Amino acid sequence: MSAAAYADIVDLLAVVPEGDEAAVEAIRAREATLTKPRGSLGKLEELVEFLGRWQGTSEPTLENPMVAIFAGNHGVTEQGVSAFPREVTAQMVANFTNGGAAISQICALHELNLRVFELALQLPTGDITRAPAMDDKMCAATIAYGMEAIAGKPDLLCLGEMGIGNTTVAAAVFAALFGGKGADWVGRGTGIDDMGLSRKVAAVDNALTFHAGHLEDPLEVLARVGGREIAAMLGALVAARHQHIPVIIDGFVATAAAAVAYAVNPAAIDHCLFAHVSAESAHARALKAMDKKALLDLGLRLGEGSGAAMGAVLVKTALHLHNNMATFTEAAVSDKAQ
Amino acid sequence: MSAAAYADIVDLLAVVPEGDEAAVEAIRAREATLTKPRGSLGKLEELVEFLGRWQGTSEPTLENPMVAIFAGNHGVTEQGVSAFPREVTAQMVANFTNGGAAISQICALHELNLRVFELALQLPTGDITRAPAMDDKMCAATIAYGMEAIAGKPDLLCLGEMGIGNTTVAAAVFAALFGGKGADWVGRGTGIDDMGLSRKVAAVDNALTFHAGHLEDPLEVLARVGGREIAAMLGALVAARHQHIPVIIDGFVATAAAAVAYAVNPAAIDHCLFAHVSAESAHARALKAMDKKALLDLGLRLGEGSGAAMGAVLVKTALHLHNNMATFTEAAVSDKAQ
Repeated sequence: MSAAAYADIVDLLAVVPEGDEAAVEAIRAREATLTKPRGSLGKLEELVEFLGRWQGTSEPTLENPMVAIFAGNHGVTEQGVSAFPREVTAQMVANFTNGGAAISQICALHELNLRVFELALQLPTGDITRAPAMDDKMCAATIAYGMEAIAGKPDLLCLGEMGIGNTTVAAAVFAALFGGKGADWVGRGTGIDDMGLSRKVAAVDNALTFHAGHLEDPLEVLARVGGREIAAMLGALVAARHQHIPVIIDGFVATAAAAVAYAVNPAAIDHCLFAHVSAESAHARALKAMDKKALLDLGLRLGEGSGAAMGAVLVKTALHLHNNMATFTEAAVSDKAQ
Repeated sequence: MSAAAYADIVDLLAVVPEGDEAAVEAIRAREATLTKPRGSLGKLEELVEFLGRWQGTSEPTLENPMVAIFAGNHGVTEQGVSAFPREVTAQMVANFTNGGAAISQICALHELNLRVFELALQLPTGDITRAPAMDDKMCAATIAYGMEAIAGKPDLLCLGEMGIGNTTVAAAVFAALFGGKGADWVGRGTGIDDMGLSRKVAAVDNALTFHAGHLEDPLEVLARVGGREIAAMLGALVAARHQHIPVIIDGFVATAAAAVAYAVNPAAIDHCLFAHVSAESAHARALKAMDKKALLDLGLRLGEGSGAAMGAVLVKTALHLHNNMATFTEAAVSDKAQ
């Protein structure tokens, strides 16, 4: 990566705005007046605090909750690592836009805005078993492109992805950042059979061997064994932090973007909520490596932001309750006897 | 309980309609055509199967999803077992109707119908530490009244409750049905302090001692140490089963109603989905005693159907996806390479 672009991104990750704890205190003060036992809405109360902390206001909004899906293609599919052919990436991008995909319908039902970002689908990244995924310049440019996700001024940003082969590169990113081998991080993705799973494990191990000596730096890991959608999600999440936009991370592949940021500076992802623990087997391991807990455990393994969007539904519900419930005084309900 | 009423209820619990496995197969066949890897929506796919199995159709509906809240008062509050005074039950019933409560706002946001059933709030049940909660006739009548919950013809029924003191009687029901003592089943409810918690444990232990020899039969347990809202929820859930209405059970107290049914016939609650594991400490123990898994774990401990309603939001989303996603053919997306 060019020294200047590299330094810019590292700076954006290294020095990040703090959360607004005064806003959180004000939110807690209102929560305590609402007609329910204190704390009895559990994580729904924490979700309102999350919004306020990272929007930097005691009166957070959800006027423009957005799901951003980044789609990329991957040279490593040449190693037979996916159950689906590569052209499915572009076909699913069309399906997102046409309303036929799961994420399209979750967004339609729950009034979330959906934006899809195509990342040069006709030019897959390099096959990580024998070449870098991207050169440094392309990696930096893709991170910068991902920052555009916030141009639509979302007040909540859900990050998701689509890319045949991308659970393989995500596994390679996790292995490079957190240690372990292919077998520790590879799962069945869209549903690969046993032989394909062996090829997938081998592809990650071969990539780690091929790039050995170039995997010390998290951004180098991203360029060498990552993918465009992971780079773009990294750009989106860091831009969101600086613009006071809370982020919800989807599943295994989106978590890889958060992991790159975490490896540079653990505090850089404090504004990220992990929506769910994926059925992709190593997602729980990735969350544990960063000491993060997921909100939901629904056995999802679809990607395309679907789990993040379900998380956004809970956030939306939580804020609606916070804003619309009656107080003890308003409802003439007796508060605690003590 | 009069011999005739008792026999009627036992019959309704003992002989229950089976689930429609042909409907489930048809639902799975459609799921396999939708533009996603098979099984990748995890529990959301299972929720559609749940609806179809218990509605008895391969094309389940959610035109009238209903949250039914049963409210009762309890003589055991004289033992100082709750953080809130008894009049809060009636005040919260008004709050449900006026739109100020959490459940009112969850229902408003997600278009669930809310019905509130008051159960003689001015006449608390007997103090279970020194009297039966209800005589058998009142218990049978209350079970029958609960069956009225399905008069509005819901196609999904969420069962919740309100009643100051009712986590104490629910704890007594669990202890009587599943063994153990007060300390095993009592939690902080709406937020009782340490001294109140001790009184609550003692109240359950005293009730178990007082009613010893009369707790062999599950319906006798209900009458002796239960409460009106638990009896009514039992009636609602068994009526729902016979009318092919799937049920979502809320938290600790609603689970006590399911536990009475389970103790008569474990299959009698196969149509019940447990929405969430409550922060009320013994809820997980109660679920485990029946070998049930909860859908969500959000640290809720509010009651009033709030967790069940959140479960209904997931069910609604699941059915919307099943009905509205494109098939591989419709979207011209390539299916698996194999």
